[in-house]
Amino acid sequence: MNADDARHPFDRAIALEPQDHERWLGHTSPAYANMVGPYGGISAAQALQVVMQHPQRLGEPTALTVNFCAALADGPFTAIARPLRTNRSTQHWLVELQQQGETQLSATVFTALRRDTWGSDELRKPAVPAPAQCPQAPARGVAWLERYEMRFVEGSLPTEWDGEDHGSSLTRLWLRDAPPRPLDHASLTALSDAFFPRIWRRRAMRVPIGTVTMTVYFHADAAQLHRVGSGYLLGQAQAQGYRRGYFDQSAQLWSEAGDLLATSHQLVYYKE
Amino acid sequence: MNADDARHPFDRAIALEPQDHERWLGHTSPAYANMVGPYGGISAAQALQVVMQHPQRLGEPTALTVNFCAALADGPFTAIARPLRTNRSTQHWLVELQQQGETQLSATVFTALRRDTWGSDELRKPAVPAPAQCPQAPARGVAWLERYEMRFVEGSLPTEWDGEDHGSSLTRLWLRDAPPRPLDHASLTALSDAFFPRIWRRRAMRVPIGTVTMTVYFHADAAQLHRVGSGYLLGQAQAQGYRRGYFDQSAQLWSEAGDLLATSHQLVYYKE
Repeated sequence: MNADDARHPFDRAIALEPQDHERWLGHTSPAYANMVGPYGGISAAQALQVVMQHPQRLGEPTALTVNFCAALADGPFTAIARPLRTNRSTQHWLVELQQQGETQLSATVFTALRRDTWGSDELRKPAVPAPAQCPQAPARGVAWLERYEMRFVEGSLPTEWDGEDHGSSLTRLWLRDAPPRPLDHASLTALSDAFFPRIWRRRAMRVPIGTVTMTVYFHADAAQLHRVGSGYLLGQAQAQGYRRGYFDQSAQLWSEAGDLLATSHQLVYYKE
Repeated sequence: MNADDARHPFDRAIALEPQDHERWLGHTSPAYANMVGPYGGISAAQALQVVMQHPQRLGEPTALTVNFCAALADGPFTAIARPLRTNRSTQHWLVELQQQGETQLSATVFTALRRDTWGSDELRKPAVPAPAQCPQAPARGVAWLERYEMRFVEGSLPTEWDGEDHGSSLTRLWLRDAPPRPLDHASLTALSDAFFPRIWRRRAMRVPIGTVTMTVYFHADAAQLHRVGSGYLLGQAQAQGYRRGYFDQSAQLWSEAGDLLATSHQLVYYKE
């Protein structure tokens, strides 16, 4: 990586260098660093990117599940992608990101040639104020947060960590890449993980957390994402249950025009 | 399988016979047959069972993602399970069900030693009439449907396939194994797939469908499932978006006492 590199930080972060027919070399990205190790959303995007750039890929990414097996150390990793099954119009992939021969992340990716059908967004975009009417969240000294413009509509990070049970963990916010970048499936994957952990909102307590597994269903194809361009997305996230060290959170991402682009779910470890 | 086998049909269906240290022999189950091939929920339970009975398993199943790569043919299959990563108190598994050397189903399973923490069910069990007040759905000539007692609260299968857009795909029902069987993670996995495809409800049109991938997050551990025993579960399912051949549906399963036992999501192929 050199200072003259004119690419968007996201494109630099997901870049891969071929090693052989099923192995690529990638690097964790300082631009998307979290407090310890990389932002999970960028690791998920890197896992998807292995399939996106694979010469054998058939169709568009339609579902992705990424498992955070162990913390990626800052530095290089080996990405391995293998089609487990190729059908006439669909394909199932297995991806692993390895360091020192150990699996740090695994992912399964489903790609498909998509066809026109009846369609509907049953979960409608909630009525919220426009992005310009929502104040931009200040930077918070964490690299990856600087890579996203976030404008909270409701349910922002608690301003007081007083341990009061808020009852609900619902958050709604406008968000997009910073600087803006035309949306694609890789960046949509990363955006699906941009919701701070629901338990922080619910409990107003900053307990240690870590995402264990995340699934993204892509409702939008590449043409639709292209039409969204670098516009704002409305994101919504809420937990369903917290029990014995793990909670789940569900998320939805709509375009500003109101189209449901992706739905996502993750299971998160928490302490205390 | 012989007629004198006193085991519950579910236990017979998920039985596996060891081949070597990472391979087992299983069979599709006529008792859980769908219109074509096996019921997806039983295949998912079989995939989980490979890990459940694996001598190297650490902790309890906490998340499962199963990918239906191709239709399982009626008959035997080879199940392969491999721990991709073993940490101090968590483990990540890869499972494949193969026939004729081809992967028909892949799954990733996350197991964990769970500890007491603060907990809460943010998504509360809706107030509904008791099971005895809801009429039992009649058998419908499909084997796997005979394996479940279903008592619909709302959103049952349309009685008229008239193509009218119902606007919502929400279904709520009481359900349990038939005959009753003490709940465990394998049967809870199968129950997570027992919701008929949301698009049939939404459109009152029986379009061809097939689940592509399903994720289950287990909020309950074995001790909690043991307490539920063979009681009824309240299930709820609804679609979020339908677009270009694929829709997703989210589901929740509570105990009759009101504890959230599992949340689940799946992506489903549809035609037309």
